[in-house]
Amino acid sequence: MARIGVTGMGTMGAALALNIADNGFDVAVHNRSPERTQAVVDGAGALAARLHPSDNLEDFVASLEVPRAVLIMVNAGAAVESVITSLIPLLDRDDLIVDAGNADFNDTRRRADLVESKGLRYLGVGVSGGEEGARFGPSIMVGGTREAYAPIKDIVEAIAAKFEGDPCADFLGADGAGHFVKTVHNGIEYADMQLIAEAYGLLRADGRDMDQMADLFAVWNAGALQSYLIEITAEILKAKDRETGKPVVDVILDQAGQKGTGRWTVIEALKLGQSATAIESAVAARSWSALRDTRAAAEATYPRDASAARISDADMEAALLASRIITYGQGMALLDAASTNFEWSLDLARVAEIWRAGCIIRSSLLDDISAAIRKGLPHGQLILAPSFVTLLEDNVPALRRVVIAAMAEGQSVPALAASLSFFDTIRRARGTTDLIQAQRDFFGRHGFQRLDRTGDGFHGPWAD
Amino acid sequence: MARIGVTGMGTMGAALALNIADNGFDVAVHNRSPERTQAVVDGAGALAARLHPSDNLEDFVASLEVPRAVLIMVNAGAAVESVITSLIPLLDRDDLIVDAGNADFNDTRRRADLVESKGLRYLGVGVSGGEEGARFGPSIMVGGTREAYAPIKDIVEAIAAKFEGDPCADFLGADGAGHFVKTVHNGIEYADMQLIAEAYGLLRADGRDMDQMADLFAVWNAGALQSYLIEITAEILKAKDRETGKPVVDVILDQAGQKGTGRWTVIEALKLGQSATAIESAVAARSWSALRDTRAAAEATYPRDASAARISDADMEAALLASRIITYGQGMALLDAASTNFEWSLDLARVAEIWRAGCIIRSSLLDDISAAIRKGLPHGQLILAPSFVTLLEDNVPALRRVVIAAMAEGQSVPALAASLSFFDTIRRARGTTDLIQAQRDFFGRHGFQRLDRTGDGFHGPWAD
Repeated sequence: MARIGVTGMGTMGAALALNIADNGFDVAVHNRSPERTQAVVDGAGALAARLHPSDNLEDFVASLEVPRAVLIMVNAGAAVESVITSLIPLLDRDDLIVDAGNADFNDTRRRADLVESKGLRYLGVGVSGGEEGARFGPSIMVGGTREAYAPIKDIVEAIAAKFEGDPCADFLGADGAGHFVKTVHNGIEYADMQLIAEAYGLLRADGRDMDQMADLFAVWNAGALQSYLIEITAEILKAKDRETGKPVVDVILDQAGQKGTGRWTVIEALKLGQSATAIESAVAARSWSALRDTRAAAEATYPRDASAARISDADMEAALLASRIITYGQGMALLDAASTNFEWSLDLARVAEIWRAGCIIRSSLLDDISAAIRKGLPHGQLILAPSFVTLLEDNVPALRRVVIAAMAEGQSVPALAASLSFFDTIRRARGTTDLIQAQRDFFGRHGFQRLDRTGDGFHGPWAD
Repeated sequence: MARIGVTGMGTMGAALALNIADNGFDVAVHNRSPERTQAVVDGAGALAARLHPSDNLEDFVASLEVPRAVLIMVNAGAAVESVITSLIPLLDRDDLIVDAGNADFNDTRRRADLVESKGLRYLGVGVSGGEEGARFGPSIMVGGTREAYAPIKDIVEAIAAKFEGDPCADFLGADGAGHFVKTVHNGIEYADMQLIAEAYGLLRADGRDMDQMADLFAVWNAGALQSYLIEITAEILKAKDRETGKPVVDVILDQAGQKGTGRWTVIEALKLGQSATAIESAVAARSWSALRDTRAAAEATYPRDASAARISDADMEAALLASRIITYGQGMALLDAASTNFEWSLDLARVAEIWRAGCIIRSSLLDDISAAIRKGLPHGQLILAPSFVTLLEDNVPALRRVVIAAMAEGQSVPALAASLSFFDTIRRARGTTDLIQAQRDFFGRHGFQRLDRTGDGFHGPWAD
């Protein structure tokens, strides 16, 4: 009998199953096509002894200890829905279904209700770290109930990445909390990747070759920017295509895909009255990347001058650091708003802690962020945390110089610019929405509030 | 008997009813609280003879010619839902319900299905122009079926604004098309208001007083920026508060409200894989305006230098023109994507035409836009239309100078910057998403496409 079962033997499901086995747990494995399950077992080496394959869901469920725990790792959407529907009649009271794939947290909330109404238990769990993480230690964000989590807590903590011994896995809150946090993690990932891509674009336009850029990113990875994404960027820029011998980035079509989590982040932010503009700009950049023919036509119509922006390596590094801090800050503010709205009582410092290892956005900065959050963020803003104020005072000027230099030469820096725009807008006590309120009152009698008096619904003289 | 009925005697509903009466049609009027209906009749002067008030929905419906046409003008959401539910049992086959308020077009699609399933007809109609427009000639965007529209077409065209004699009203497409177009209209309105607010912010920081700014906007309104929003901005900046004698903008709390349409625009854009970044930045600016205490704390933490950006009046005017063109272009691209997705066959040139008068975003530019769309937009992009290329070549350099000067002084220009970022991103044939695709393949085995070969699912050397 197995402690837990994994259904879905794709890249991530197989890696998770092997990770569980590797940590000494017997794990039942299942896939819609049994050949795939067998291939995973065949490739498992010594770990095969702890993998218990089944060809169908009935046998798979029958091979589990009671109360049963089934972890689903299939494509988001219809596939998850179908597996849950098939599992429900096979399970008994207090058995547990875990959706460990990326899911729209609204679906998770609905599914948790459905599964719990059948007397079963449900967890929506975000797993980050890609294949490598899933196999050797991901970051794991758990949402649901503590009762549902208790029976698998030891397994989850065993397979998770560790940061100085502390498992990067935790129960975060009710129903969709785990998947929401994972969604925002991915949104931040989108923004961080876009910021890096903008730096790469500026360096490329400056005539650096890929090896030079790779070396620079490697140097940055030893400093304040230390992070998985900077690290792999150095490796990627150095890598050569096996067929042509060219730098691999030079053979790749510059058209990025989206799996939806970046977009979800932005949509949920908007629904909550928030705007995560650094993430918005990253999602936008991916949308526009799809328009290759349009871009070619537009370049022909509006050619740029050949000159490159003159940006020092130190400024570029500082600009990335400042914009990264601003991006994380927007992400944390969004989590805060969601936590209030959905009554999750998210421990944001703990979220930052379980992101310190295993996940794609892991970075040295996250340790500082969790410490800052533990001390309390003034107005809920990371950029107002005392430990970050000095950092931003030191680095925003470089962000400003980089954005200005890039824009002067017609370079594309939407996410860097969006970060700077947020900073300059949020640190202005008197904004310009007084005019906007006047306009709304002028054409729509919306009314406004006054600076010199409480109450609302005041009108301008045009109302007569 | 009345040709048409209006239920909901709020600002907009009353104005529409008076407009209908003013055009010689008998109109039944109703409101949940009859006092309000009576007040409208009492204030109608000679038009009262054509207003037929009823105290309850039954009498209201009974006072209508058959087939009946009922126009609903109540708050979006639950109120609309409730009126529709109450009306359905009172109406007969082929009677028509028109929701003329702002509605989430997804609701309109659902409601059209519901109402039509009862043998009735339904139109979702966007009405823009504020109270003044509703009373004397709004822009009217009709969605539903041509059969439903036919019996009220004469009324709609009579009450609509006219542009050189052409009514600013038309049937645009099936189900939610009218409300979707109205939503995007409002999204563009958000962006245009934000761009104007940014210009005002720069001028204010430069030490101009309100009267000077008002004069400048008035001059601009006589040029390429001619538009309702520029016109009223001049009037607003000149207006003095009745109580204090101060410029009215100086007594208004700089905290803007949102009725949801800006946010809806951005969310629907994202769902369609589009990014209307100029609108996104305007929605963001309104969100951030709500954080007054945060902004005050942030200004204390990160004070700006006192120096203002040096921007010439001509550059500011040109920057507004360029960013407005880019904003309209994003809006039109979004309408195009929605039209394809929902099979509306939207005539985008006609949309631009019915926006030329009556609505809040009416501007001289829209006449040029409709002409450009009629000739066909290369790659669906307004910025590639031959008639706009020269305009942008002439004006983007000023936009660039303004954004750079503003950013150099720490001024907030998120929408101006977002417009420029779009321009510089879309006119770059080789982007930087090749690196992003490499990252995604590196950590998640997502695969990529190659420049030198068709097919997808290629991997980098790290996949071994």
